[in-house]
Amino acid sequence: RYMNGAGSNPDAHIFAMAAAQVKKGLEVAKKMGAQNFVFWGGREGYHTILNTNVLTELNNLASFFRMAAEYKKKIGFTGTLLIEPKPKEPSKHQYDYDAMTVIGFLKHYGLDKDYKLNIEPNHTTLAGHGYEHDIVMSSAFGMLGSIDSNTGSPDLGWDTDQFPMDIKNTTMVMKTVLEQGGLSPGGLNFDCKVRRESTELRDMFISHIGAMDSFARGLLNAERILKEGVIAKQVKERYSSYESGIGKKITDGQTSFEELEKYILDNGSPTNVASGRQEHYESMLNHYV
Amino acid sequence: RYMNGAGSNPDAHIFAMAAAQVKKGLEVAKKMGAQNFVFWGGREGYHTILNTNVLTELNNLASFFRMAAEYKKKIGFTGTLLIEPKPKEPSKHQYDYDAMTVIGFLKHYGLDKDYKLNIEPNHTTLAGHGYEHDIVMSSAFGMLGSIDSNTGSPDLGWDTDQFPMDIKNTTMVMKTVLEQGGLSPGGLNFDCKVRRESTELRDMFISHIGAMDSFARGLLNAERILKEGVIAKQVKERYSSYESGIGKKITDGQTSFEELEKYILDNGSPTNVASGRQEHYESMLNHYV
Amino acid sequence: RYMNGAGSNPDAHIFAMAAAQVKKGLEVAKKMGAQNFVFWGGREGYHTILNTNVLTELNNLASFFRMAAEYKKKIGFTGTLLIEPKPKEPSKHQYDYDAMTVIGFLKHYGLDKDYKLNIEPNHTTLAGHGYEHDIVMSSAFGMLGSIDSNTGSPDLGWDTDQFPMDIKNTTMVMKTVLEQGGLSPGGLNFDCKVRRESTELRDMFISHIGAMDSFARGLLNAERILKEGVIAKQVKERYSSYESGIGKKITDGQTSFEELEKYILDNGSPTNVASGRQEHYESMLNHYV
Amino acid sequence: RYMNGAGSNPDAHIFAMAAAQVKKGLEVAKKMGAQNFVFWGGREGYHTILNTNVLTELNNLASFFRMAAEYKKKIGFTGTLLIEPKPKEPSKHQYDYDAMTVIGFLKHYGLDKDYKLNIEPNHTTLAGHGYEHDIVMSSAFGMLGSIDSNTGSPDLGWDTDQFPMDIKNTTMVMKTVLEQGGLSPGGLNFDCKVRRESTELRDMFISHIGAMDSFARGLLNAERILKEGVIAKQVKERYSSYESGIGKKITDGQTSFEELEKYILDNGSPTNVASGRQEHYESMLNHYV
Repeated sequence: RYMNGAGSNPDAHIFAMAAAQVKKGLEVAKKMGAQNFVFWGGREGYHTILNTNVLTELNNLASFFRMAAEYKKKIGFTGTLLIEPKPKEPSKHQYDYDAMTVIGFLKHYGLDKDYKLNIEPNHTTLAGHGYEHDIVMSSAFGMLGSIDSNTGSPDLGWDTDQFPMDIKNTTMVMKTVLEQGGLSPGGLNFDCKVRRESTELRDMFISHIGAMDSFARGLLNAERILKEGVIAKQVKERYSSYESGIGKKITDGQTSFEELEKYILDNGSPTNVASGRQEHYESMLNHYV
Repeated sequence: RYMNGAGSNPDAHIFAMAAAQVKKGLEVAKKMGAQNFVFWGGREGYHTILNTNVLTELNNLASFFRMAAEYKKKIGFTGTLLIEPKPKEPSKHQYDYDAMTVIGFLKHYGLDKDYKLNIEPNHTTLAGHGYEHDIVMSSAFGMLGSIDSNTGSPDLGWDTDQFPMDIKNTTMVMKTVLEQGGLSPGGLNFDCKVRRESTELRDMFISHIGAMDSFARGLLNAERILKEGVIAKQVKERYSSYESGIGKKITDGQTSFEELEKYILDNGSPTNVASGRQEHYESMLNHYV
Repeated sequence: RYMNGAGSNPDAHIFAMAAAQVKKGLEVAKKMGAQNFVFWGGREGYHTILNTNVLTELNNLASFFRMAAEYKKKIGFTGTLLIEPKPKEPSKHQYDYDAMTVIGFLKHYGLDKDYKLNIEPNHTTLAGHGYEHDIVMSSAFGMLGSIDSNTGSPDLGWDTDQFPMDIKNTTMVMKTVLEQGGLSPGGLNFDCKVRRESTELRDMFISHIGAMDSFARGLLNAERILKEGVIAKQVKERYSSYESGIGKKITDGQTSFEELEKYILDNGSPTNVASGRQEHYESMLNHYV
Repeated sequence: RYMNGAGSNPDAHIFAMAAAQVKKGLEVAKKMGAQNFVFWGGREGYHTILNTNVLTELNNLASFFRMAAEYKKKIGFTGTLLIEPKPKEPSKHQYDYDAMTVIGFLKHYGLDKDYKLNIEPNHTTLAGHGYEHDIVMSSAFGMLGSIDSNTGSPDLGWDTDQFPMDIKNTTMVMKTVLEQGGLSPGGLNFDCKVRRESTELRDMFISHIGAMDSFARGLLNAERILKEGVIAKQVKERYSSYESGIGKKITDGQTSFEELEKYILDNGSPTNVASGRQEHYESMLNHYV
């Protein structure tokens, strides 16, 4: 009978198999004293929306993650569970598209206390964001757990998993890591591969050395940026109007449209917008890299 | 003094101005008996992450939306409040990137009962998804409130707001609308403009007629698809293993990794994955368009 | 010694090997009475411009193609030699990026009488153009020899080699083929593969049937478009001012800036630009698909 | 009458107007002693291929460029005529898509002695290439005449004309400029604008200073790269097998498939491909930036 696909197993059977495999993985992780357990992103999406019930798939995915968190607690595994966002490839669309999508998913299903994010910035660029975007966003929400410190090629539309060699990128990543007080028990993982044309054994060493050097330079740059505090001071200044008066009421959720309208009637319409000074910020960053 | 930008108003002042404007807008909407009130997407993001505190901005954005919802209730305006996702342009990144990002944001800030989404599919394609993706996702979560029925050009990276002329696209949109039982009080809005080279008055008429015809054909196609039910039946069959037995337990969240492992030990490893049959689904769709 | 890569063969040696292989391929093609011989696009580019001398590589590539054309004549093989443009993947950049790049390359090296193009439209979309663009461009220059009638997914940035299922696309391709009087000795080749999730034998049949049906519908649509001639008539009208008077002189290269300036002084500045009527053309096309 | 668009001027009339304008422009350029005359890229393409005869448009475009070159000679203007490639925006497709497309066009119409290229790297990235790609390609063909030294944002799909602030990019550009012995009479032009949020007067100064500093650092880096010669030496070594023996015969076009096959039969199949060493090159570049 065609509808079922002759001889094929029901999807729930395959789901159960995946659960059994991850159960074993968690047990092994506990035995080895693992500190992180990453749910790697690469399959949990659809190839065509025509054959897909997205809500059933999301519910079942959440069910899977809930069982994993429960089983982790039951066996006393203390490592961090991490989800790694990836927008596509090989699937057309993945449900863990980017950091904010995953955070929203975890909030929706009440799993945000049980999972953190493992960000791979080449997945971030595939999702249409800047290299450091998902690092910054997940850190802002207290969800940055670990980093796959690869890079992609901004002019290519697939995942090349190249060794990170751009100092500006590594500086931005390390700046965020320092700002959140480190990454422990996560870390920087090279989930990279040498390029197809790098065919000699020593390419393996040179690529790791070059990428580690890039992150070391990024760390030193970030440390100087934070120590000198010039950029941070200006950002703080930019938002300073929210630290007192009507601004603080806005941030604290203690005001209303009526009060804000009255504020404008009392104080007049704003006549001038403060500059965003993008080029100044870019020049300041260039001072450090 | 440079830090402040000579003569520029504090950001909180500008925030208050926006609040006063939207307050007035809500009052006018109530007076006119408006059924929808769209927060159009196009500015609420950053141009460079270097000068940006994303968490402060998201909190303040949520504060704004909370006050809008409160004021709506206070004055008895009964129209739907809608947020329109857009990933970028003119900003580099918008916080309401796509449907799932907005839904996650609303969940996080407890605003998901107060807002629905207004989806503009050319924003969806700019976010790297298929044309109908955000329509389907927001509908699955019960959040699809209205549609700006424009299209973009898949080979262009900016928002062209073209009139929708692709029958396959309009069929997919209307199929989702029919499946959720209609769109009321929302609707299909042409937020389109004729192309720069379409310089004659009659282009305005022809473009509206052509686009309305495209949606009319899409509606007729969708109605036949749903009435004949061939595609829906196969999708239902694909997920049927989750309607009973171990599959139902998965969907209902009533099982555990231990039970699923035992299921595999009792029933054996799956040997064969059912085909996704993408090409068959695509051929079926072609039968209708 | 590191500079040479211990034990690696000189590049010229590998070039010679490729030549020997293609020589054999041409001999086999002649023996089998082949009508087409495609130089498939996928490797002839660079992964990083840092290690690359682009001019040496282009010169050597041209040398290779010249020898192939010479050997073809020498052995009396009468099939068409074809180059298949592809912009990238797995390489970062390919020298045969798209149709116009290849045509320019062939002109530059005096090879344009010896080669035609084999267009694969999913490569065209990867190069940032519309689906039918390279088909139309190579046909306009009399260089369209054959077609790999695959499709990609417009929201994905790599080459999926999907079966073509979009009737508008197949209509545009067949319209161009009919307009140039057919494709012989080339043809429509399915260089496609079923999607990763299409795991059953019958998916192979259904995908070929669905794609052939799509091209059949495209052919019927194109035939009606050309027979009725409504679109062609309007395009001809659009350019009609170049068929006589000053316009014909422009097209024939028989005028000068002085004469054109005098024309404006005599006839006045233009006051009104004719509409491009994009939406009208799109609506006309929708009438046929 | 609809076919003509009531009251609209024939296209040839508008063509003549453009010719008269450029004629005047050339006269002014001569009077001012201009050294460069750039045909800026931004309109010479199509919005929809449905209403377009690409061959007529390309022929007329060539006719225009031929008349400009003739008139330049006639009036004794000695500045360089330059074409600036741009792939799209606001049009869907431009005929001067990228450097190789323009070079091919010039070759095809016999205009390659009369024009050089003005490369704007943010147009290059819009065309899907790496930042420095068109700089390198046009230089390799002796066609790099001047540079609009802007940048875009690699995650955005439109032309942002930002001030160049990436040292790696400016290093690569200046390396190419130095390698070709300078750019005179062209130069580095900032065709940039401050970002929409940079609203203060001093942003104008800071952005120019920051971008000039970026190119100054790039120049210093490039000078060291070329003086030390480590990278150049390795690239030369990579292609050294084409400088003598069978390799030289390949490059000189003095061999044939038969001779190359005999070479393989005599010397054996290659067993090992030399590594491309991308990560090593990237690490070497990082040493300088």
